[in-house]
Amino acid sequence: MLFHVRMNVNLPASMPLEEAATLKQTEKDLAQRLQREGKWRHLWRIAGQYANVSIFDVDSVDELHTLLTSLPLFPYMHIDVMPLCRHPSSVRDGDF
Amino acid sequence: MLFHVRMNVNLPASMPLEEAATLKQTEKDLAQRLQREGKWRHLWRIAGQYANVSIFDVDSVDELHTLLTSLPLFPYMHIDVMPLCRHPSSVRDGDF
Amino acid sequence: MLFHVRMNVNLPASMPLEEAATLKQTEKDLAQRLQREGKWRHLWRIAGQYANVSIFDVDSVDELHTLLTSLPLFPYMHIDVMPLCRHPSSVRDGDF
Amino acid sequence: MLFHVRMNVNLPASMPLEEAATLKQTEKDLAQRLQREGKWRHLWRIAGQYANVSIFDVDSVDELHTLLTSLPLFPYMHIDVMPLCRHPSSVRDGDF
Amino acid sequence: MLFHVRMNVNLPASMPLEEAATLKQTEKDLAQRLQREGKWRHLWRIAGQYANVSIFDVDSVDELHTLLTSLPLFPYMHIDVMPLCRHPSSVRDGDF
Amino acid sequence: MLFHVRMNVNLPASMPLEEAATLKQTEKDLAQRLQREGKWRHLWRIAGQYANVSIFDVDSVDELHTLLTSLPLFPYMHIDVMPLCRHPSSVRDGDF
Amino acid sequence: MLFHVRMNVNLPASMPLEEAATLKQTEKDLAQRLQREGKWRHLWRIAGQYANVSIFDVDSVDELHTLLTSLPLFPYMHIDVMPLCRHPSSVRDGDF
Amino acid sequence: MLFHVRMNVNLPASMPLEEAATLKQTEKDLAQRLQREGKWRHLWRIAGQYANVSIFDVDSVDELHTLLTSLPLFPYMHIDVMPLCRHPSSVRDGDF
Amino acid sequence: MLFHVRMNVNLPASMPLEEAATLKQTEKDLAQRLQREGKWRHLWRIAGQYANVSIFDVDSVDELHTLLTSLPLFPYMHIDVMPLCRHPSSVRDGDF
Amino acid sequence: MLFHVRMNVNLPASMPLEEAATLKQTEKDLAQRLQREGKWRHLWRIAGQYANVSIFDVDSVDELHTLLTSLPLFPYMHIDVMPLCRHPSSVRDGDF
Repeated sequence: MLFHVRMNVNLPASMPLEEAATLKQTEKDLAQRLQREGKWRHLWRIAGQYANVSIFDVDSVDELHTLLTSLPLFPYMHIDVMPLCRHPSSVRDGDF
Repeated sequence: MLFHVRMNVNLPASMPLEEAATLKQTEKDLAQRLQREGKWRHLWRIAGQYANVSIFDVDSVDELHTLLTSLPLFPYMHIDVMPLCRHPSSVRDGDF
Repeated sequence: MLFHVRMNVNLPASMPLEEAATLKQTEKDLAQRLQREGKWRHLWRIAGQYANVSIFDVDSVDELHTLLTSLPLFPYMHIDVMPLCRHPSSVRDGDF
Repeated sequence: MLFHVRMNVNLPASMPLEEAATLKQTEKDLAQRLQREGKWRHLWRIAGQYANVSIFDVDSVDELHTLLTSLPLFPYMHIDVMPLCRHPSSVRDGDF
Repeated sequence: MLFHVRMNVNLPASMPLEEAATLKQTEKDLAQRLQREGKWRHLWRIAGQYANVSIFDVDSVDELHTLLTSLPLFPYMHIDVMPLCRHPSSVRDGDF
Repeated sequence: MLFHVRMNVNLPASMPLEEAATLKQTEKDLAQRLQREGKWRHLWRIAGQYANVSIFDVDSVDELHTLLTSLPLFPYMHIDVMPLCRHPSSVRDGDF
Repeated sequence: MLFHVRMNVNLPASMPLEEAATLKQTEKDLAQRLQREGKWRHLWRIAGQYANVSIFDVDSVDELHTLLTSLPLFPYMHIDVMPLCRHPSSVRDGDF
Repeated sequence: MLFHVRMNVNLPASMPLEEAATLKQTEKDLAQRLQREGKWRHLWRIAGQYANVSIFDVDSVDELHTLLTSLPLFPYMHIDVMPLCRHPSSVRDGDF
Repeated sequence: MLFHVRMNVNLPASMPLEEAATLKQTEKDLAQRLQREGKWRHLWRIAGQYANVSIFDVDSVDELHTLLTSLPLFPYMHIDVMPLCRHPSSVRDGDF
Repeated sequence: MLFHVRMNVNLPASMPLEEAATLKQTEKDLAQRLQREGKWRHLWRIAGQYANVSIFDVDSVDELHTLLTSLPLFPYMHIDVMPLCRHPSSVRDGDF
């Protein structure tokens, strides 16, 4: 089941650089693990912004929420979720 | 080069059913051809709406505009385009 | 799996009264059947508006979209969908 | 009498972790007591957000306001209230 | 129990003048009866707009919704409802 | 002459409790004096918010501005003013 | 007493040209009379729009509303009113 | 050449009172000089807000920008600029 | 003097194709003449929309308004104007 | 390939003046180098705001994102990107 997720990151200016770097590295590691597991199906950067558009493939809304709130950057993000479904004109069999 | 495209369709209530059906079928044929050619990489329905989220893979902004305005439903759609680029945490090699 | 759905209805002023009445009756019949089947878990009117807040309990986003687009009033509604999940402070076992 | 309440929580980054934990526990205790008393009829988490959708069942607007402002997290929440009433198509007798 | 109600009226340009006049007179008669009965406590025109701000005093949300939807202009109005309660600094005993 | 005034209060989290309490008490005293003088005709709390809807009865816009800016909480409020006038359907003689 | 008024005009495309011309001429005559009488103090066109910014000088909100609703284009305008008062840094004695 | 300028002032709560007073006095002196020179043609306070509506009369957009950014409060203001031109119904010869 | 102009075109669905074609051709001829005269300095299509971003170079706001309202598509466009001035970091001498 | 970029700068009030000056100078140096290289084709100040409208000419979205995020002021800017393409009425051969 696919969900369209947009994340806008806003790190406080007062955060020490080292703390920010650690946070981003942990975020990256988790993001890559979730992608390899197939849960985080797509991850794109929005040009000019510290923001991304992602497609998650999960078994339930609860699983989606658990994944999103486990992200180290979650406390610093604004997240919008939009449920997706198969488009009748889609030709890609697995793309939903 | 990837672009995130959201299309909201709004057919006038006064359009004859047959005209609408022809329009949708032509749209579907073109959408499927563009998907097979790799130009229209993803196409998802937004739940509860006559709207979709799409990912286009084109060589230029001009090509994107030409594709979008060639859609039979173009005169009845509101379209928002957002340029995407590779996310540093993405693990999928071709996904940009 | 629960989804929060808000529907705003906007019937065109030009629709004949009888057509509107038939549409609303068919909508009511389907809404009541879906409630009895447990798919449409809650249905409330928003005070002062021709609009409702509903809670749907479905197995997938595709099922939700199929239900919503099958409603006779669908072409005349603006619909917003928001995925819900269990709240850690909830005490009601089945309420998610 | 039912009210649809949406609460968005925004704890300041500068709040000590222990203070936040105490606040959340007190909030949870009160939320669960109000649910058991039937005042807070439903409580759902919105996926991807530190926010909830709730249905309150109270005897008056004043009672609703008293309950909401008694919540420990009230100073850190943005709250929107929408009065609900029985929908003519609802089949659930007590659901209003 | 008080509710703050804002009504914006939008009569279609195609409505015959006589029909509009009848509609407005019936609306006025009902508005005045409801005011005399104490249900429609205040009614003010917003300067420069075909709109009003009203205060309703009702026993329940259902009663409010029944009153509002019984207005002849209801199909041509956008209505926003905001529940009010006693302000701790108010000195007027009956003003809630 | 009546004006519809909405005030949203936002005290900084860093304000000492005692300072806030003094501010609120002074605000309350002034609000009550202005109500008794007939300048601040109505004062209602908006349910679930630290906000009010008020009706002021003043001789001029300048008088209104002077009253509003004299409120101790003025520096911490967002204020919206909407000029009201007599509604042709109003039955209350002094209500404008 | 001064009020800042913004008027956006939106004539329906279906209005016959002659009717529109008559409407605009009557509007212009009245606007010029009100300016000469000192009620409509300033009248500027907003560049690129069929819209204006105006300053009215009236004795009461009721007078303002009566003037605005007497304009022949009133049914085709969206109007926003903002009460103004003397600015403490203003050096122009009559400009309020 | 006239420009409609709206300025909303937002001084940080942490600014020492004396610094704020100096800033405001310098702002006032400059505002009055620019008014006397005819550059700042009108200056009105918006009722209930720390904001003003102004009309500037300048020879170019560059001159306007230079004036606005020279204001001592500029770093604490949100400014919106709207170009104005002569309205065909205006009767005041110099009012553009 | 430069102005940033965004035009969104919205032709009514009921307009005969021939009328639309004539309108667009006349618009194009005028647009090209104004570009050659140096008044309409840049003209770009916004991808996916029947809209453009333009830069006009005019001697006054009145000239800009006259040019914009002379466009054949003016009655069918929503136009937003934003005054531009020389950026201190610009290296292009004539680009303002 | 052209992109329309709007940048709004918001430096924190707490930033030391010297740090801000250094940041702005480095930004200016880079902006001028990118203009000379033809990547940053236009750069205009929006009147009355600490903001600019720019036109970038890049080979890909990735190149655009790399340029924008390399700006020293990037962490303090809100950036909106809009892809542009050749307008059919444009007469300037290289302007796309």
